[in-house]
Amino acid sequence: MIRPILAAAATTIVLVAPAYGQSAAPVLFDATAYGNVRQPGGRPPMFAAEVKRVKKTVDAAMRAPIEVPVPKDPGGGYTHEQHKRNYMALYGAGLLYRITGDAAYADYARRLLLAYATLYPTLGPHPAKANEAAGRLFWQSLNDSVWLVYGIQGYDAIRDTLSPADRKTIDDQVFRRMAQFLSVDNTASFNRIHNHATWAAAGVGMTGYVLRDPELVARALKGTDKSGKAGFLAQVDQLFSPDGYYTEGPYYQRYAIQPFVVFARAIAANQPDLGIWQRRDGVLLKAIRTSIQLTYDGYFFPLNDAMRDKSLRTDELYQAVAIGYAATKDPSFLSIAKWQGRSTLTPDGIAVARDLAAGKSQPFPFPSQLYRDGPDGDRGALAVMRSDQDEGAQVLVAKNSAMGMGHGHFDKLNWMLYDGGRVIVTDYGAARFLNIEAKDGGRYLKENESWAKQSVAHNTLVVNQGSHFAGKWRDGEDHSPRQLFFAGDGPTKVSTAEMAGAYPGVTFRRTLVQLRLGKGSPLVLDLLRVAGDKPATYDLPLHYAGHIVEVGFPTKANPANRPVLGSANGYQHIWVDAVGASGPEGAALTWINGERFYTYHMLPPAGATIYLGESGANDPRFNLRREPLLLQRVEGKADASFVSLLEPHGAYDPAAETTVASQSQIRSLRHVRGSDGDLVLIQPLKGSPVILAIADDVAPDKTHSAVIDGRTVRWTGHFARIEGDVR
Amino acid sequence: MIRPILAAAATTIVLVAPAYGQSAAPVLFDATAYGNVRQPGGRPPMFAAEVKRVKKTVDAAMRAPIEVPVPKDPGGGYTHEQHKRNYMALYGAGLLYRITGDAAYADYARRLLLAYATLYPTLGPHPAKANEAAGRLFWQSLNDSVWLVYGIQGYDAIRDTLSPADRKTIDDQVFRRMAQFLSVDNTASFNRIHNHATWAAAGVGMTGYVLRDPELVARALKGTDKSGKAGFLAQVDQLFSPDGYYTEGPYYQRYAIQPFVVFARAIAANQPDLGIWQRRDGVLLKAIRTSIQLTYDGYFFPLNDAMRDKSLRTDELYQAVAIGYAATKDPSFLSIAKWQGRSTLTPDGIAVARDLAAGKSQPFPFPSQLYRDGPDGDRGALAVMRSDQDEGAQVLVAKNSAMGMGHGHFDKLNWMLYDGGRVIVTDYGAARFLNIEAKDGGRYLKENESWAKQSVAHNTLVVNQGSHFAGKWRDGEDHSPRQLFFAGDGPTKVSTAEMAGAYPGVTFRRTLVQLRLGKGSPLVLDLLRVAGDKPATYDLPLHYAGHIVEVGFPTKANPANRPVLGSANGYQHIWVDAVGASGPEGAALTWINGERFYTYHMLPPAGATIYLGESGANDPRFNLRREPLLLQRVEGKADASFVSLLEPHGAYDPAAETTVASQSQIRSLRHVRGSDGDLVLIQPLKGSPVILAIADDVAPDKTHSAVIDGRTVRWTGHFARIEGDVR
Repeated sequence: MIRPILAAAATTIVLVAPAYGQSAAPVLFDATAYGNVRQPGGRPPMFAAEVKRVKKTVDAAMRAPIEVPVPKDPGGGYTHEQHKRNYMALYGAGLLYRITGDAAYADYARRLLLAYATLYPTLGPHPAKANEAAGRLFWQSLNDSVWLVYGIQGYDAIRDTLSPADRKTIDDQVFRRMAQFLSVDNTASFNRIHNHATWAAAGVGMTGYVLRDPELVARALKGTDKSGKAGFLAQVDQLFSPDGYYTEGPYYQRYAIQPFVVFARAIAANQPDLGIWQRRDGVLLKAIRTSIQLTYDGYFFPLNDAMRDKSLRTDELYQAVAIGYAATKDPSFLSIAKWQGRSTLTPDGIAVARDLAAGKSQPFPFPSQLYRDGPDGDRGALAVMRSDQDEGAQVLVAKNSAMGMGHGHFDKLNWMLYDGGRVIVTDYGAARFLNIEAKDGGRYLKENESWAKQSVAHNTLVVNQGSHFAGKWRDGEDHSPRQLFFAGDGPTKVSTAEMAGAYPGVTFRRTLVQLRLGKGSPLVLDLLRVAGDKPATYDLPLHYAGHIVEVGFPTKANPANRPVLGSANGYQHIWVDAVGASGPEGAALTWINGERFYTYHMLPPAGATIYLGESGANDPRFNLRREPLLLQRVEGKADASFVSLLEPHGAYDPAAETTVASQSQIRSLRHVRGSDGDLVLIQPLKGSPVILAIADDVAPDKTHSAVIDGRTVRWTGHFARIEGDVR
Repeated sequence: MIRPILAAAATTIVLVAPAYGQSAAPVLFDATAYGNVRQPGGRPPMFAAEVKRVKKTVDAAMRAPIEVPVPKDPGGGYTHEQHKRNYMALYGAGLLYRITGDAAYADYARRLLLAYATLYPTLGPHPAKANEAAGRLFWQSLNDSVWLVYGIQGYDAIRDTLSPADRKTIDDQVFRRMAQFLSVDNTASFNRIHNHATWAAAGVGMTGYVLRDPELVARALKGTDKSGKAGFLAQVDQLFSPDGYYTEGPYYQRYAIQPFVVFARAIAANQPDLGIWQRRDGVLLKAIRTSIQLTYDGYFFPLNDAMRDKSLRTDELYQAVAIGYAATKDPSFLSIAKWQGRSTLTPDGIAVARDLAAGKSQPFPFPSQLYRDGPDGDRGALAVMRSDQDEGAQVLVAKNSAMGMGHGHFDKLNWMLYDGGRVIVTDYGAARFLNIEAKDGGRYLKENESWAKQSVAHNTLVVNQGSHFAGKWRDGEDHSPRQLFFAGDGPTKVSTAEMAGAYPGVTFRRTLVQLRLGKGSPLVLDLLRVAGDKPATYDLPLHYAGHIVEVGFPTKANPANRPVLGSANGYQHIWVDAVGASGPEGAALTWINGERFYTYHMLPPAGATIYLGESGANDPRFNLRREPLLLQRVEGKADASFVSLLEPHGAYDPAAETTVASQSQIRSLRHVRGSDGDLVLIQPLKGSPVILAIADDVAPDKTHSAVIDGRTVRWTGHFARIEGDVR
């Protein structure tokens, strides 16, 4: 019954009256900032492009009849996507009205909102609701919160153009009801310390500012009971580490950052006395920078539940970069905006576009850095080691962070490697096809539990073929790794971390070293030591990307009938291509990825078995990607050491048809355990060897020694690199 | 023993005397053309960049001691790569001498050639020779010919700087011996009608011009017996079709084009009376254009033995484009050079760089076009249908060409599809890791015979699980497809071809239609009809790229123990993931590739079985890529029709997190066989249906009729598209 009414309304555009007094003027941004961009000629290129882009979609939406369908579909379905299109159109129309002064945009926003004012009060829980908290417009209330965050900004921009009657209708029937639904009616989820609650708080809080309703603002800042135990401020204090690391990991940091910074901007504008940008030594600004740091060539490290195709080119980061620049005027944000190729329609976006056009951009520095986890920074860390600042730099990521709640994976001390512009040692990310209806409505697939989260799907230690914390994430919340040592400066970078409690009676420690040896990309040395209270089976998987060039150890292949490796905890998803054994000098596998070769040298405990396999077994619905993996297994040991060296080498040039050093340039890898530390000797084909000395003790001043080839090697501190021959 | 002598020579650079008279002046290019580029300031950007690039490698080579090792290694090995580096350095030094006038380049070329003069006469057959004709410097004589093609050009550039003694030494001990070895000593391969022989002819013929030796030129042009039955002119007449299509396919056309055009340029300069560019209506110029046509986003269609990573960015095409431009002044060549980003150091390269800088470039037109195969154009054809000129255009390739000799695949009437910048329906190309030593020295792998060449590895009909011509390429040379119909103009493009003789008693015919239906990429309709003289098993594989989103028919999966499909002819390399059955309305499979969805609608004969599988079985050395495939099978039929429709639809935007139309927009696909033709009815979800009418007879004037839903459809000619409802 809505359509005819709207059709009528559509004919009244020209009759929109101007502002009904300043009491309804915008409060979420400075409307005067649009003075210089009213005329197209006054718009800096990036801003002009954004106006054009948004204008295209909003103008198209305005030409079509308004569609505010009764909610029905899950993610990816028609009603889901239409309500998303509507909040984007509302947001765009509001800002376009401020930019162009064209009343048609304001009137369109008005008509759209009046349609919601008719529909929204009639809605109950969404018919497609799942285990998540149900929304009204969407299958999960999270999406309703996002609707409110965008919607209230669009509304704020046009609210002073409305008649008192329309304004009251929209205030009461749309925004007050949504704010009520998302806060009081959903107290449990609203009061969580979780990004879903942050979206809700941002929507409710900004609604409070726009409707001039302090009660809503108070709820948003301090929780429904206003005690401060919940709400936005508690979230700022508890969800980020002192280094601005968000505990769920980079992918959700990207997602969570938007409500944090958008609401923070609104708070700074309306309650400057709260000093929100200064809170916790400026943790929200650190959070913006850290989001950018946790990327490779602009793509987020796909740790925990994460989509691999997510980059800095997303609305969340356009907003975060623009707001970060407005708050700091740090010109390195401009080079990120340049890479993004887009900014926002807000006054902050105007500043970014203007200063970028003025050539004020500076390179964004990407240091090797430790990002501590946990509110107090004592719940492990993410260690990022970068070979240099180039685009094709080698980046070694050691995931020594905490569980990260329900989206966390069981991957303590996991690692990833990027090199030459590609991912070489991989993380599967999430088993999910975002918004693709045929794949369980775009939600996380059951394979996300059965594979993607499991320990064996990561580059970490697996004991007795079970996952860390027996696959119970709440138990994982109680046990974080300890980052014992980090050296991010100088040519040799080192991270040492230890994990206890992932398995009863088992402690394991991992040192990852990024070291240059001659020209080319650095090598990566991985020393993993495990100590258990009883004999067990220890598996160390490596998930790599590339095509096998050479298997440097004897194998028995399964060429015509491919079995699976196990029956549970992710093992049921692993096809076994071949089984081999490591020799006294260890074993090596060489693969090619792009235009470079990689050899993985292994020194597992004596008698170790090596499996070559691929993901994708027990997957009748083709929900999994098929990716290669290698697994080292030792059985019946209580204590064990796995020493591995990943060596990038050579060059393959398909255009020039030249190939250089397609075979390993390392003659030997050896390991000696001393009384209180380990020596690893790397002997290249050409040049003298290098010894890496790693003490158990991380104290900087203690001296240690160990003997290799009759030579006593002495060093001070946790780590030392000794050049030259052992004779 | 070479080293010390060279070290001594290296100290005499400054003593090089100027030209010893014009009798030795360059004859392969116009040395006066370098007048304007002597000073760096006079060099257009692309040429300056090329000078810089070549200078870098040549200067580095000049700083190092000269290395002319005794041949030992196969492709990819040290001696192989070093002799390749040497001929590139020789070529570069020669032209750099002409460009810069720096005598050091001439002297380096001299010293390098004197080293070869010492080594070459001592050489016998290469120790790593395989089944190919053995070379002296390389494992196959082909590489020796390439050495000569580059080497003689470099030598021509500096020959007039040599003392008579040095010149005689190099003439006699290097070039005359190589020419002798490649022609008379290898008569059999020299007199073949094959690209290997073209490289030899080009090297020997240009050596003839440079050494002023008419005997060598005559041999090169007309074969060792100078009868004209062999040699370059016979190769020009027999290896290209009238449309400039090279019978081995795009990958080898790319490779073969260089000696053809480089030698042709030399012939035009030294024997203009031969009218080489005009020969056969300018077939060599057509060949350059056709090489460029047989690409998608610059990458060659990987038909027959081909590396997928081969693009227009190769030395062969830098040469071909520069020479083509010099010969025609067609400004569309400049836009290709622009995409390549490089040109040559020759006078032709100067012209390309200069005119590109002058803004003379015009877009290179990519029409939908038929490329006939065979010297007389009657041995089938390659049909290329392009939706438009955009980068992301949809390109449908119907491989109705002839066998193409020993590198040809058993894939009669095979097809490929590109869409949205990606390959969607694939061709495996060759099983080979070019120049990667660990992979059989970089040669073709045995899996090239057991998989890549086999019929089941392609998108073509397979009878009784055997390959076309029982896998005997010489038999394939006797049976070519017939291209019966092609319509490349207008919105609906059509190719119909027929194959008889691939299997005894079996004829099959395929019509491929590229048709637009509403917005977005065109649909592809595939009607394959087979007529046999007895009941047989017919398989129709589809090799696609993407991740399965939805299997639209019931299947029985092999989730935990993956069998292979067969035991020979490529079937032993196919893992079977699931087996399903087609219903009365057929079956459909949907996958995602990049940011677009694809649904493959199938109407196989009643009772057909559908296999979902993957390549990579029986591959203990990991020589194969693992790629998905689908296979429709019908058993016990003599005649059968397979009707398939490939539908691109929807959009997936990971940044905006929006998904549109992830499910098929086609309601139904139906097929009716009439008395003398077929009707295919496509009913979209929205809008009216379209009927494709395909008559058996290809005569343009005959009228036909068939009945569907009680309606009689009448049309004239082989193909008609009828819009509107069937009522």
